Amino acid sequence: MAIVLGPNRYGKAETRLVRVIRDGDTRSLADYNVSVALSGDLAATHLTGDNSGVLPTDTMKNTVYAFAKKHGVGEPEEFALLLARHFVTTQEQVETARVSIESFGWERLGPHSFQRKGDYTRVASVVVTAEFEQVVSGITGLVLLNSTASEFRGFPRDEYTTLPETTDRILATAVDARWRHVSAGGDFAKSYAGAIEAMTAAFVNTYSASLQQTLFSMGSHVLEKRPEVAEIRLALPNKHHYLVDLSPFDLANDNEVFIAGDRPYGLIEGTVTRDDAPPAPAGWYL
Amino acid sequence: MAIVLGPNRYGKAETRLVRVIRDGDTRSLADYNVSVALSGDLAATHLTGDNSGVLPTDTMKNTVYAFAKKHGVGEPEEFALLLARHFVTTQEQVETARVSIESFGWERLGPHSFQRKGDYTRVASVVVTAEFEQVVSGITGLVLLNSTASEFRGFPRDEYTTLPETTDRILATAVDARWRHVSAGGDFAKSYAGAIEAMTAAFVNTYSASLQQTLFSMGSHVLEKRPEVAEIRLALPNKHHYLVDLSPFDLANDNEVFIAGDRPYGLIEGTVTRDDAPPAPAGWYL
Amino acid sequence: MAIVLGPNRYGKAETRLVRVIRDGDTRSLADYNVSVALSGDLAATHLTGDNSGVLPTDTMKNTVYAFAKKHGVGEPEEFALLLARHFVTTQEQVETARVSIESFGWERLGPHSFQRKGDYTRVASVVVTAEFEQVVSGITGLVLLNSTASEFRGFPRDEYTTLPETTDRILATAVDARWRHVSAGGDFAKSYAGAIEAMTAAFVNTYSASLQQTLFSMGSHVLEKRPEVAEIRLALPNKHHYLVDLSPFDLANDNEVFIAGDRPYGLIEGTVTRDDAPPAPAGWYL
Amino acid sequence: MAIVLGPNRYGKAETRLVRVIRDGDTRSLADYNVSVALSGDLAATHLTGDNSGVLPTDTMKNTVYAFAKKHGVGEPEEFALLLARHFVTTQEQVETARVSIESFGWERLGPHSFQRKGDYTRVASVVVTAEFEQVVSGITGLVLLNSTASEFRGFPRDEYTTLPETTDRILATAVDARWRHVSAGGDFAKSYAGAIEAMTAAFVNTYSASLQQTLFSMGSHVLEKRPEVAEIRLALPNKHHYLVDLSPFDLANDNEVFIAGDRPYGLIEGTVTRDDAPPAPAGWYL
Repeated sequence: MAIVLGPNRYGKAETRLVRVIRDGDTRSLADYNVSVALSGDLAATHLTGDNSGVLPTDTMKNTVYAFAKKHGVGEPEEFALLLARHFVTTQEQVETARVSIESFGWERLGPHSFQRKGDYTRVASVVVTAEFEQVVSGITGLVLLNSTASEFRGFPRDEYTTLPETTDRILATAVDARWRHVSAGGDFAKSYAGAIEAMTAAFVNTYSASLQQTLFSMGSHVLEKRPEVAEIRLALPNKHHYLVDLSPFDLANDNEVFIAGDRPYGLIEGTVTRDDAPPAPAGWYL
Repeated sequence: MAIVLGPNRYGKAETRLVRVIRDGDTRSLADYNVSVALSGDLAATHLTGDNSGVLPTDTMKNTVYAFAKKHGVGEPEEFALLLARHFVTTQEQVETARVSIESFGWERLGPHSFQRKGDYTRVASVVVTAEFEQVVSGITGLVLLNSTASEFRGFPRDEYTTLPETTDRILATAVDARWRHVSAGGDFAKSYAGAIEAMTAAFVNTYSASLQQTLFSMGSHVLEKRPEVAEIRLALPNKHHYLVDLSPFDLANDNEVFIAGDRPYGLIEGTVTRDDAPPAPAGWYL
Repeated sequence: MAIVLGPNRYGKAETRLVRVIRDGDTRSLADYNVSVALSGDLAATHLTGDNSGVLPTDTMKNTVYAFAKKHGVGEPEEFALLLARHFVTTQEQVETARVSIESFGWERLGPHSFQRKGDYTRVASVVVTAEFEQVVSGITGLVLLNSTASEFRGFPRDEYTTLPETTDRILATAVDARWRHVSAGGDFAKSYAGAIEAMTAAFVNTYSASLQQTLFSMGSHVLEKRPEVAEIRLALPNKHHYLVDLSPFDLANDNEVFIAGDRPYGLIEGTVTRDDAPPAPAGWYL
Repeated sequence: MAIVLGPNRYGKAETRLVRVIRDGDTRSLADYNVSVALSGDLAATHLTGDNSGVLPTDTMKNTVYAFAKKHGVGEPEEFALLLARHFVTTQEQVETARVSIESFGWERLGPHSFQRKGDYTRVASVVVTAEFEQVVSGITGLVLLNSTASEFRGFPRDEYTTLPETTDRILATAVDARWRHVSAGGDFAKSYAGAIEAMTAAFVNTYSASLQQTLFSMGSHVLEKRPEVAEIRLALPNKHHYLVDLSPFDLANDNEVFIAGDRPYGLIEGTVTRDDAPPAPAGWYL
């Protein structure tokens, strides 16, 4: 038996970049949080401290800023591809580059003025090797709520089951979703907007017998509307709203007064895919 | 010398309430986080453990939910006043009730569907005694950015000063503001909307020589537009955006590429008031 | 009626400083988060953007680092005083300097190795003017729990009261405390250690009829043991542990199985003081 | 082409459990945060809303509390196995149960009194099917720092590299580690303590040419000392401490005064394994 090095990677996480673009008196801005992770022939530094293959993570940070100037940033998927291709092609020992970007939204208030949108965050994550390029887009923190049109009944009961069945409850979740693109090209801005719209419409319009049913509806809606998406993963916390028992105060509560619970919460996770989708070349995570 | 009890209070913090209101097939909702603090003749429980004057904090929580059903919630200021008056008038030993509410915004997506707005949080805080009622409204987490029209120069330099003067920088802040109302009545919804609009307009339209100047402009704009506001306090972190030095890469950086810094940050705090404003009857805090 | 500038201050918040001190092969370290706020004759920058009295917050940051080298950091109270005196004496327009420090603890693992202690944070906050110096010490995040020896009964009941009386419950809190020193000198390390010890011992040894009683016991214990402390303020959240109803599963629950609740929570706040304590020259906050 | 359901699971996350155990007048306690995720034949609820196979997540929560009473909680790995086996064996449609537990440490202050240790959190995560049982233990949030005995040099330089080589720097990290056990039995308390001790000793005693070298040293040390561990994964952020340039103030800085940086940070991730370790039967994540 010997102790050996297994899979590994390293990089610079959370490089905070704001890129201002001028067009006459009007300015626009991109607000990105960029994380780079490289893997390849990196055994030496682990085993002997030989750093001859370890491009400094400080250099990755510099590259983010320099590329933002030289090439502009474009859509997050595009900027991530640009960076990932650079590391794979210029660093011989690097076989795989993974670049992830969080993009924070800003709403225009004037020619040079903005208000940050805090409602959700766009994410993009790409993996590039000499053989393939994989692009995943996504969203985190989109909180949706239906105040009715949600049931939960017909479930099995065991000796630890006390939950009553319900035909009318609040259904609320904070959408965390990632979808893998068929290819590494395309109109990522339009694709992103369309995916959000499809997911949101499905949430709103599904009469829900379970959050699982809503999840599948959201995922399949995205695949129906967006042919460029191969598969989608969703993680949907069930943000429980508990009906308050007001009977001690001689008050009825006809689904009017709720406790918004913190913990615990249900957590529903699922993938929706196409039966002819090519397999993902690299691991990807929600 | 004797050891004695000084000022004290107690209550239930962060009761999470969601109130659904139906109007035919359309539903609306209020999403509040309610904190209650009572003070008065409470020495006995501290000194001897005699709880005969200590209304349980659990009862305060129950009261929040029962009142939400019985009376509805209205604007946060109104619901806070309703609760505070109840505790002062029904509990003999309670002299002062302080009720604070965070109100989370939701955007309508359909007759019964909503998306949470994460951009900022509305707050209200009232103090009620037998003698007076004080109402404070406010906001937290409104992030604003001007990508130009901001300078910082003409400042004194001592032996530890290395900062260069600048005539063009990004100015960004996360607005935390509270404003005290002249009276405990009025149209709080309209007042709130107007105050936000006035603050935002002042931020956008002020050519800023310092964040202090912007702060005063924001505060005075609110007082100009809203006669029902007696005074306003603002705490504005200077969310620094550092220009990246790209010269090692033979690249210019004409205010295009910035590091969004985390810590440290400048913090500018100030009050704007009317010279004839009546003094605040109770302490209030930003 | 005119709109006028009220109280204001500005400064640099959260300058993160790690200071390494060598003693032969052994090194020790101080890990501080320093916030500076200055006030005085600062109307001009607010009203006209004239910055001739606005020492840059960047300079405050530089001063923190330069002073850490020149003078060392000592106890947090001492370093805060050093900085505050500097700003008041060297900047004519500055009347009041407020310096607050969070100090993060590290446990020694070897001559140059350390493990961060995450259990609680020491804080110090000083105010310096030409007339006085005020020193406040404190702690945040010390979580204490008694698994028995806590009651809550004998409380008043109104129509919204459903809480049963209890003679045996878990009592848990996260101690947030600040205490004001009689003078600006003394052995702050010993004082701090003694205050923590006194508070903790009082929590452990008090058979508690209410968290208020425990609060007063903790505060008075500190004043009894530490003559250098004039008064102490405590904010104690009641971290509720709810007994789980296991009767649906034909199981008893003799104070064995609890839900650790998040929100809401009780919040007990109080001051313990000496009847001959001189009044605080400046405002101070828990 | 058809749209189909892919991998999915659901469960109750973050059930907060405090279990008090009495032994005469002495009490001890376990403080767990338990998350359950089940997968198996769950297509119906996704596709048609048929919940006949969906054991409510509320029941999972009840089971956590009931089992804590009936069986006690033991070590986190044991309690996780107990719960996971229950769901797999009693719910026909469930093929795989994944149970993860965070365990928060408490230090004894008296027979019934405790202080929460905030320095790091123990975690355990098990996967159970009819075919296998997989146990992973771990830790999160252990912050370690060497104030010297760390270099970083000999690295490649490209056109974006500006970092100087260093032979003396602070090396600090927040250890996030998970290790997979060879079998589902054993003395988990002793194993856990031994793994922490091995990792910490390796961090302290390694003269480090790179954080990668330290990572491999930590991982291999655990495998050397703990034969029950098959492989270990570590994610080590490089918590950068930047030397402050004090030359503008005519001060030297011989590794004495540092800025503790927030973002960006290096992130070093790696696996250390045995060359004869059996493959993991289920996916596991750091």
